[in-house]
Amino acid sequence: MAQFINSKEALVTEAIDGTLRTAEGRLARLDGFPHIKVVLREDWDRSRVALVSGGGSGHEPAHVGYVGAGMLTAAVCGDVFASPSVDAVLAGILAVTGPAGCLLIVKNYTGDRLNFGLAAERARAYGLKVSMVIVDDDIALPDLPQPRGVAGTLFVHKIAGALAEDGADLETVTAAAERVIGKVASLGMSLDTCTVPGAPKEARIEEGKAELGLGIHGESGVELVDFNTAHEAMELVLARLAPHVGEGDKVALLNNLGGATPLEMAVLAEELAKSGAIPAIGHLIGPAPMMTSLDMRGFSVSLLPVTGEELAHLKAPVEMRAWPGCAPIGEPAVRPIPDGLTPIRPIPSENPEMRDFLTRCCDVFIEAEADLNALDAQSGDGDTGSTLAGAARALKGALDHLPLADATQLYRAIGLELSQTMGGSSGVLLGIFFTAAGDAASSGKSHVEALKAGLERVQEVGGARPGDRTMIDALAPALDALERGLGAAAKAAREGADATADITRARAGRASYISDERLRGHNDPGAEAVARLFEALAAG
Amino acid sequence: MAQFINSKEALVTEAIDGTLRTAEGRLARLDGFPHIKVVLREDWDRSRVALVSGGGSGHEPAHVGYVGAGMLTAAVCGDVFASPSVDAVLAGILAVTGPAGCLLIVKNYTGDRLNFGLAAERARAYGLKVSMVIVDDDIALPDLPQPRGVAGTLFVHKIAGALAEDGADLETVTAAAERVIGKVASLGMSLDTCTVPGAPKEARIEEGKAELGLGIHGESGVELVDFNTAHEAMELVLARLAPHVGEGDKVALLNNLGGATPLEMAVLAEELAKSGAIPAIGHLIGPAPMMTSLDMRGFSVSLLPVTGEELAHLKAPVEMRAWPGCAPIGEPAVRPIPDGLTPIRPIPSENPEMRDFLTRCCDVFIEAEADLNALDAQSGDGDTGSTLAGAARALKGALDHLPLADATQLYRAIGLELSQTMGGSSGVLLGIFFTAAGDAASSGKSHVEALKAGLERVQEVGGARPGDRTMIDALAPALDALERGLGAAAKAAREGADATADITRARAGRASYISDERLRGHNDPGAEAVARLFEALAAG
Repeated sequence: MAQFINSKEALVTEAIDGTLRTAEGRLARLDGFPHIKVVLREDWDRSRVALVSGGGSGHEPAHVGYVGAGMLTAAVCGDVFASPSVDAVLAGILAVTGPAGCLLIVKNYTGDRLNFGLAAERARAYGLKVSMVIVDDDIALPDLPQPRGVAGTLFVHKIAGALAEDGADLETVTAAAERVIGKVASLGMSLDTCTVPGAPKEARIEEGKAELGLGIHGESGVELVDFNTAHEAMELVLARLAPHVGEGDKVALLNNLGGATPLEMAVLAEELAKSGAIPAIGHLIGPAPMMTSLDMRGFSVSLLPVTGEELAHLKAPVEMRAWPGCAPIGEPAVRPIPDGLTPIRPIPSENPEMRDFLTRCCDVFIEAEADLNALDAQSGDGDTGSTLAGAARALKGALDHLPLADATQLYRAIGLELSQTMGGSSGVLLGIFFTAAGDAASSGKSHVEALKAGLERVQEVGGARPGDRTMIDALAPALDALERGLGAAAKAAREGADATADITRARAGRASYISDERLRGHNDPGAEAVARLFEALAAG
Repeated sequence: MAQFINSKEALVTEAIDGTLRTAEGRLARLDGFPHIKVVLREDWDRSRVALVSGGGSGHEPAHVGYVGAGMLTAAVCGDVFASPSVDAVLAGILAVTGPAGCLLIVKNYTGDRLNFGLAAERARAYGLKVSMVIVDDDIALPDLPQPRGVAGTLFVHKIAGALAEDGADLETVTAAAERVIGKVASLGMSLDTCTVPGAPKEARIEEGKAELGLGIHGESGVELVDFNTAHEAMELVLARLAPHVGEGDKVALLNNLGGATPLEMAVLAEELAKSGAIPAIGHLIGPAPMMTSLDMRGFSVSLLPVTGEELAHLKAPVEMRAWPGCAPIGEPAVRPIPDGLTPIRPIPSENPEMRDFLTRCCDVFIEAEADLNALDAQSGDGDTGSTLAGAARALKGALDHLPLADATQLYRAIGLELSQTMGGSSGVLLGIFFTAAGDAASSGKSHVEALKAGLERVQEVGGARPGDRTMIDALAPALDALERGLGAAAKAAREGADATADITRARAGRASYISDERLRGHNDPGAEAVARLFEALAAG
């Protein structure tokens, strides 16, 4: 699959520079591109223990994203999934290590162990105090003597980082890191492999399956399992982790391996929070992409039983966006729905003249049903007539419950009735029309002004304007003419409706999806309905 | 493609609850699941203008991720790519709107306009002050009267949010939002479509092509273009944006549409920063997933010419992780490589006895080349003999440059020589062995103690232990016996080397990948080399 890169060779150096451009003076890199790719803190004064980590790239935001006060002092980056060279690691160590010394945090891969190990030796030959810890948190292969280092490494970065920031000495920071490494356990699951730049994508995992216990470099999972739901996936991962996790309060780290969506990760977080499979998981880091494997659609869970001090170090705030924080897991806070969703039904009132007027209006639409359906069949799905007639019948049936004697309340009640009985866009638009007209009437406007206010709001919300081949093409001129009487309004509405037959480029509404020529010669059914209404009212 | 969800129906509600579980009291939801999905600020006191946004889900972190002080007061969520209902929007408005009123920020889609629009009317009927703005920043379809709302919406959230947080009134906040909407322009490009839960994936974009001007709901791009490099992709997007962007200082927002990796996004950020296609882009928001389209492998660029006040509002810090901040674009800070990468060459010194000893050692390996290669062919790629012989020849050739009279310096010099000439893991491990031995010698340890210190460090870094079928199986017993003389050491080394023929489960090094039975009956070539060395030295 194509990727947004320029070349495999320049990928990591360009990405580092792209990141540094908005670092606002917090970060710098060493002048060793392309061979030496080291990112370090700019505010570093060597007065405290330096923390250096790194490894192959492709795990972003690890490790550059964690360089900053309270976590790493420097990140040494290799090419994608390739260990950085001894020289690169040594450059990183030499650039940040002062009298307090340096801790190397290395994931358990042969290349990283050797290259960081030899760099440490060389740095020691310069008289520097350098210690090194190897993170091996992956429990995928229980009998493997060399478990891989995966997302549990973040616990080490954060706890050792907080201690170093507080001024702890190298022995204390190293011992704390070792204790974390001794306790942390991680396991990953994926629904798809990752796409390595410059290599063809391996379609290894068939639909309906998931790999359990995969690595972060595209290594196959230990086991191919059936995949059904997020619930089962999380339960399986937790069941496998359980024997490897000690007693006591635990912090979980929920890592996006790269390609899972935020929605999926949030569902997995919910499953993790709800599950009782492992007791006493009190805090969660994430969900977030923290130690990714390029675009792998998978997740991993890391679990760490913590002391109170370790928890405090995990919760200590840092400014790096890549660190998602460590928050207590609680129940979702739920607030009652506010009053007002069920609109207050107005008190019915009688007004024979209004009852007669509304009945006549409704009858127009009921009688026009077949004609309007036939017109709509030219540009839509042929139901405009039925939609309007149905709403008209419902409104006629509701007359006894309407506040016929109160214009403001009546407009609002009609708006409510139409928006609930008509459905679809038309119902919403007519709902807006009458509700807005009611608002205008409540502030003392005349009927014509109120209806114009309703039309204005419909145009604002619906986005249609005169000329867009909608009912507005008849309604707008009719309302403009209404001050001069129903006859003038009917004439204007008819002219407007008939003009829609020549509008072949619909710009709003459903007809905007229809080809021009199919529209020619047919009135818009909404505009036609309006014209027929005014003509009927004018005819008395 | 399978996804980490339980059901399409429960996806959004479960994801919201999963998110709220770690909200630490900052956020709550309304008690209206599954129909009403509204997330709101818990610390909200209705004293200021409320900001309500939302729309279909599938755009995470929008919109829930932006609920918090300084941005949104509430987010109203529909199902994936589906507008929330009128009731849901109204519930959101009623839950947060006080005397200062409420601004609805709506992306320009018919469903959202209508449902937010009618909800606004209903809220106004309760006497609430509600205004609504429609974001239409997408320039993909230049002649479309209804441009879509995409990632530029974030500018509106942030600027209006900062103003509202500062206590500005509804008219001021609305006018500021309208000004942003009038200026902002966005365009997206993607290399692949998104995977809608419950729907088959549409493989629409062929290899080597990209869609320009796609929507955030899986809508096709306006144009299928050739895709070659990140550079060309960014230049094309900027060229299309240029005519739509006004004069003056600009802020760019670089949005990950979901499936691009952080490496790719950082490369695109570098291209954006380097390009001169549009002048005066002084600040960058992102790169980050801000307004995604599920897992779409694409990006979008939004550009906003800003006033000083708008820039200040964009830069105002907020606590939501989903907001990546707005940082000035600068040159990457580059620091010189520290001294020490090129190791100081020790001053050569003469010591005929040591010269003779080293020569004899080297000759052992040179003579054993063919035998060791043959042994290695049983478990590896048959080059152990050549690797050792090559290093031995190089070391013999370097004798004139070595500090033969100074044990500490000599160990270090041999370590450096071997790590540079041997290559591979063996070179690094022997480099560590001799460098660590040199460190030990410098602190006054005997030769035997120094060599043991080297071995200890090799085990620590390399991870191999006695019994793992490596050279350590001969070297460890030999060094243990060395105090008793070379004869004892040779005997111990030979016994150790021969015992490796029975180790069929290699636990470290290259042979760990080889099946058990192929190993049986053959000594490990590294151990054999050590045994031959001690035997030759013992023989005088």
